[in-house]
Amino acid sequence: MSRTSLPANTKIGFLGAGQLARMSALQAFRFGIQVAVFSDRPEDEPVQFMTPFSYSGSFESVEDMVAFAKTCDVVTLENEFIASDILKQVQEQSGTPIFPSPESFALIENKLIEKQTFEAAGIPVTPYKLVRTEQDMVEFGDEFGWPFMLKSSKGGYDGYGNAIAKDLETAKQGFEKLGGLAGHDILAEAFVPFTKELAVQVARNETGTVVYPCCETVQENHINVAVVSPAPIEEKFQKRAQELAIRAMEAIDGKGIFAFEFFLTENGEVLLNESAPRPHNSGHYTIEGCIASQFENHVRSVLGLPLGSAKMNKPVAVMINLLGTHNRPAQTDYISEGLAAENGHLHVYGKVQSKIGRKMAHYTLLGENLEETFQKAKSLTKDIEI
Amino acid sequence: MSRTSLPANTKIGFLGAGQLARMSALQAFRFGIQVAVFSDRPEDEPVQFMTPFSYSGSFESVEDMVAFAKTCDVVTLENEFIASDILKQVQEQSGTPIFPSPESFALIENKLIEKQTFEAAGIPVTPYKLVRTEQDMVEFGDEFGWPFMLKSSKGGYDGYGNAIAKDLETAKQGFEKLGGLAGHDILAEAFVPFTKELAVQVARNETGTVVYPCCETVQENHINVAVVSPAPIEEKFQKRAQELAIRAMEAIDGKGIFAFEFFLTENGEVLLNESAPRPHNSGHYTIEGCIASQFENHVRSVLGLPLGSAKMNKPVAVMINLLGTHNRPAQTDYISEGLAAENGHLHVYGKVQSKIGRKMAHYTLLGENLEETFQKAKSLTKDIEI
Repeated sequence: MSRTSLPANTKIGFLGAGQLARMSALQAFRFGIQVAVFSDRPEDEPVQFMTPFSYSGSFESVEDMVAFAKTCDVVTLENEFIASDILKQVQEQSGTPIFPSPESFALIENKLIEKQTFEAAGIPVTPYKLVRTEQDMVEFGDEFGWPFMLKSSKGGYDGYGNAIAKDLETAKQGFEKLGGLAGHDILAEAFVPFTKELAVQVARNETGTVVYPCCETVQENHINVAVVSPAPIEEKFQKRAQELAIRAMEAIDGKGIFAFEFFLTENGEVLLNESAPRPHNSGHYTIEGCIASQFENHVRSVLGLPLGSAKMNKPVAVMINLLGTHNRPAQTDYISEGLAAENGHLHVYGKVQSKIGRKMAHYTLLGENLEETFQKAKSLTKDIEI
Repeated sequence: MSRTSLPANTKIGFLGAGQLARMSALQAFRFGIQVAVFSDRPEDEPVQFMTPFSYSGSFESVEDMVAFAKTCDVVTLENEFIASDILKQVQEQSGTPIFPSPESFALIENKLIEKQTFEAAGIPVTPYKLVRTEQDMVEFGDEFGWPFMLKSSKGGYDGYGNAIAKDLETAKQGFEKLGGLAGHDILAEAFVPFTKELAVQVARNETGTVVYPCCETVQENHINVAVVSPAPIEEKFQKRAQELAIRAMEAIDGKGIFAFEFFLTENGEVLLNESAPRPHNSGHYTIEGCIASQFENHVRSVLGLPLGSAKMNKPVAVMINLLGTHNRPAQTDYISEGLAAENGHLHVYGKVQSKIGRKMAHYTLLGENLEETFQKAKSLTKDIEI
């Protein structure tokens, strides 16, 4: 049932306290909603500067999170580090609903289950296999080609939890690096000859489903440096990715904001690569790029409010990730040019420490023409040091 | 000198903790800037739910505010309730700069000085006179016509601090109601036969000046119920108001965001009515209506950052003030229609108690055509109860 009322003192709890919780919190505030955050880290997290309701504890402790959840009207996720059975217990014992639900999350919480879930829903995924032995890896490589990827089924993000198997020797090394038989299940995954990496956000709750434009995540040296939206591909591929994203969302009965990442292959296939039950870096451009951002719809969806429109405000949006350039106390330097540019929008995450390569900030530029806007955004941000 | 760097842990302090501080704080957060708030009220203020750095005290106590200011890198205003000489002492004793500066504020802090300041800068103002005696009031009424307004030179807002003098009897009553000779100076002000009430925001700092569109503040029963932008008047009058607003800003060497309210008279004059050294209700539409909102430029200006563009994102914007409809714990009801409308944007201030007529929330609708958008915005919000 759709919610048509917002009582004062409504409080949304975020399990996790990074920049995603931070940007969602801003949207909670704009609706007059209070924010509580639960961090599993010892250091100061930026979102902790944005609320007096800050809790610390372990993502493995039901007790810690129950105490937190009891202070909230609804709890939501900003990462995929908490096991679904733990979330389920937190929900049961606190009496506070968690969205995305533990049941939805259970269907994607590890890479093996995730692929099985989406395959069962008729969604094409990259070829994969659960591997436990040398023999498994050899067979996989021989069938789908060397090199291939090894991925820990749990805990991987931004390239962590992955290894490349070029041959049996590196396969064995990778298998052990990822924890071997003692750790989480390990998958072999074929390298797909893709031409583009795509992403689509979907917001969904009992009031309906909203799908965002299909964007491209631009990589340099395996690092996601930028997002351009809509993706510069034929419209039929954009639509295909959006359709698959909606189908995936329905397959897990998702309530909340989810991101789905795809490969567009050389032969025109769109394959689902990964999903995330939360706002995603690929959707940061929606803050200014779309009528309602992924963060606004994150808040709306978990509260059961009608969802906002995902239409774009301008023909194109380009988001540049501003990664740490120094190891030092954080400081964002040389930002004048970017700030002064019309339709340029700087977001700084307020992290206290900068580390080389760490996501510290981003910059979005809206425009009329993709290539021109992309070049301009890169130029406006090239001198920024963090 | 323009600032090109934002160190982590930069903290902006707001003297005042209402919805204006709240919406400015959201823009501080988006730049990774921390927020401290100083409230002079005993009850919970919404912005106090948005920061762990919350202080209480008196707007008359230099000591209270010095302790607060010392924790901040820059302090700014969200109201005009603190005397400029107090602000000056706070700045000197804390060593923390205050913007708008106490010197700028001193030039507009009471209605008499404000009018003298702007008159001296060649800006047309409504006819006025400092009145101390019955004779003063009679002379004013006879020269500029009965009825006229009596205004306390200090402390008035939203109609408080005003009285109507229909004749000598009501003039005497009004004079006493406003504190008489024992209180602040009292001004007589002529009723101006205006056709529209206009407002213009100006952001200014050492990097430049940005002027917002000229909007109309729409009154019903002397209550500002809506703002439409740009104002539906001839362009030459829009430009005139913008020019006068910039001139007024320069006259006081304003650093920060200011609002200037004007009357457009029946014979085509644009008269400055009031100024405010802070974000203003008439500029709430800029959150979605303009590339950079009044709140974003509030933060940018007081930090010495380059200012954002005030260009509109769509041809027209309409902002509806959502005033309390009940005396009860705050609850925003019947919001589905407004939330579901494309380009409709709800902002709830998070106040704990609703009071009839209290500013509790607002709703902005962007569109192509002013009259159509205005009617639609009214229709989408007509059932909302708070």
